[in-house]
Amino acid sequence: MRKIKLVLQYDGTDFAGFQIQPDQPTIQGALERSLRAVVGKFDHFGAAARTDAGVHALGQVIAFTAENPIPLHNLIRAMNEHLPQAINILDAEEVPQSFRARQSAIGKLYTYRIWNRETGAPYITRYAWHVRQPWLNLTWMRLGASYLKGRHDFAAFRSAGSVVQNTVRNITDFDLQRVDDTIEARIQGNGFLYHMVRNIMGALVEVGGGRRTAEEMEEVLASRDRTRLGPPAPPEGLWLTRVFYPEPDADPN
Amino acid sequence: MRKIKLVLQYDGTDFAGFQIQPDQPTIQGALERSLRAVVGKFDHFGAAARTDAGVHALGQVIAFTAENPIPLHNLIRAMNEHLPQAINILDAEEVPQSFRARQSAIGKLYTYRIWNRETGAPYITRYAWHVRQPWLNLTWMRLGASYLKGRHDFAAFRSAGSVVQNTVRNITDFDLQRVDDTIEARIQGNGFLYHMVRNIMGALVEVGGGRRTAEEMEEVLASRDRTRLGPPAPPEGLWLTRVFYPEPDADPN
Repeated sequence: MRKIKLVLQYDGTDFAGFQIQPDQPTIQGALERSLRAVVGKFDHFGAAARTDAGVHALGQVIAFTAENPIPLHNLIRAMNEHLPQAINILDAEEVPQSFRARQSAIGKLYTYRIWNRETGAPYITRYAWHVRQPWLNLTWMRLGASYLKGRHDFAAFRSAGSVVQNTVRNITDFDLQRVDDTIEARIQGNGFLYHMVRNIMGALVEVGGGRRTAEEMEEVLASRDRTRLGPPAPPEGLWLTRVFYPEPDADPN
Repeated sequence: MRKIKLVLQYDGTDFAGFQIQPDQPTIQGALERSLRAVVGKFDHFGAAARTDAGVHALGQVIAFTAENPIPLHNLIRAMNEHLPQAINILDAEEVPQSFRARQSAIGKLYTYRIWNRETGAPYITRYAWHVRQPWLNLTWMRLGASYLKGRHDFAAFRSAGSVVQNTVRNITDFDLQRVDDTIEARIQGNGFLYHMVRNIMGALVEVGGGRRTAEEMEEVLASRDRTRLGPPAPPEGLWLTRVFYPEPDADPN
């Protein structure tokens, strides 16, 4: 039995999210159909992150077991032939049986893109949050982000209604850049609560627009109170960019 | 009665083309619904070009007449609120009653984009022809394009089954650029036959891949024979970029 890890991209716009659902187009549904066609029987299907409806991926990771001895480059090609154009396998690798796409991950990098201009452009706003106005103040947003970087209890930034117990996470890297009308945030951490990146970006856009001070990010964190925040940033700006795993030769003990 | 000209962008992927059709999502259908909601009664709806299913626009032009006195900036905003995200009004202008979106046009600029790399990327190949291999020779393609530039009988480059009488058109400008893995062709002319740009690009990709010589473009033109060409380039790479009209103060006589 082989365990195979795949790295893939997708445009999430036309899918009801990653996780399989009856009678809805999902990333997982498309992947499983393609796997059945290409390798036949497979088992232990898992993904690094269950992205929401409309969220995109540049480096999602899935893993599964199968008996089929198909060479990996043929697996990539055959799956890409079966998959809809919106999903694309980039890389395949044989991994130890102990590998779990989600549980083995030691970090994730998300990118969040904002299109900060009055007029839209469909081929951009499909992949970015269209913030028409005001012109966001990047200095304020960066200051707000600096309060969130590091190990904190992010209970205030989880999804409304979330019941996860441990809400402490470590944001190891968080930078924001503006290129012309686009603001791109890169946020890396050991793990993220459900809706955490989108809640953070929703709050930082309020900071950038002067509706909150950057310092309030510290108070919101300390409050652990989800009701202190406005709505999350919309899904179309969010990209699961990379998932990190221990180096293969590192001893897991 | 006002005559209003609109400039608009769209992502054509999820539409069955510009022209209205029953029970199919079309650009015209979405525009007319939005117009009914915003201005109420309108008449004399026309478009500069009836783009095919999957073809995009950066500067399509439509025109219509209406009594509604709504200020133009409000018209743009209200229409954009009603339109699907894939369609976006960029500009509105009041024009003389004699203006016709198609008949008044004196030129059009199309852009055709090719993604020339083995691996795809859904957020790119939605908007470009994915030519996996070979690595296209831009020098050969430019040479091929040079035979097509100018005033010629483009009968060989029209759509199979087209019955238009006058097949002489003038390509006033035709340049090809490569930036990394993307080849972008800009082709401007006084008008284009149905499928002419896509047939030209299909042929030039054969030239770039060494399956035809650049010189054959001259022979194909002279033959006036559509069967000398392979299939047209796919719609997803094609963008209606700009439509040109006489300067408003130019005398139409």
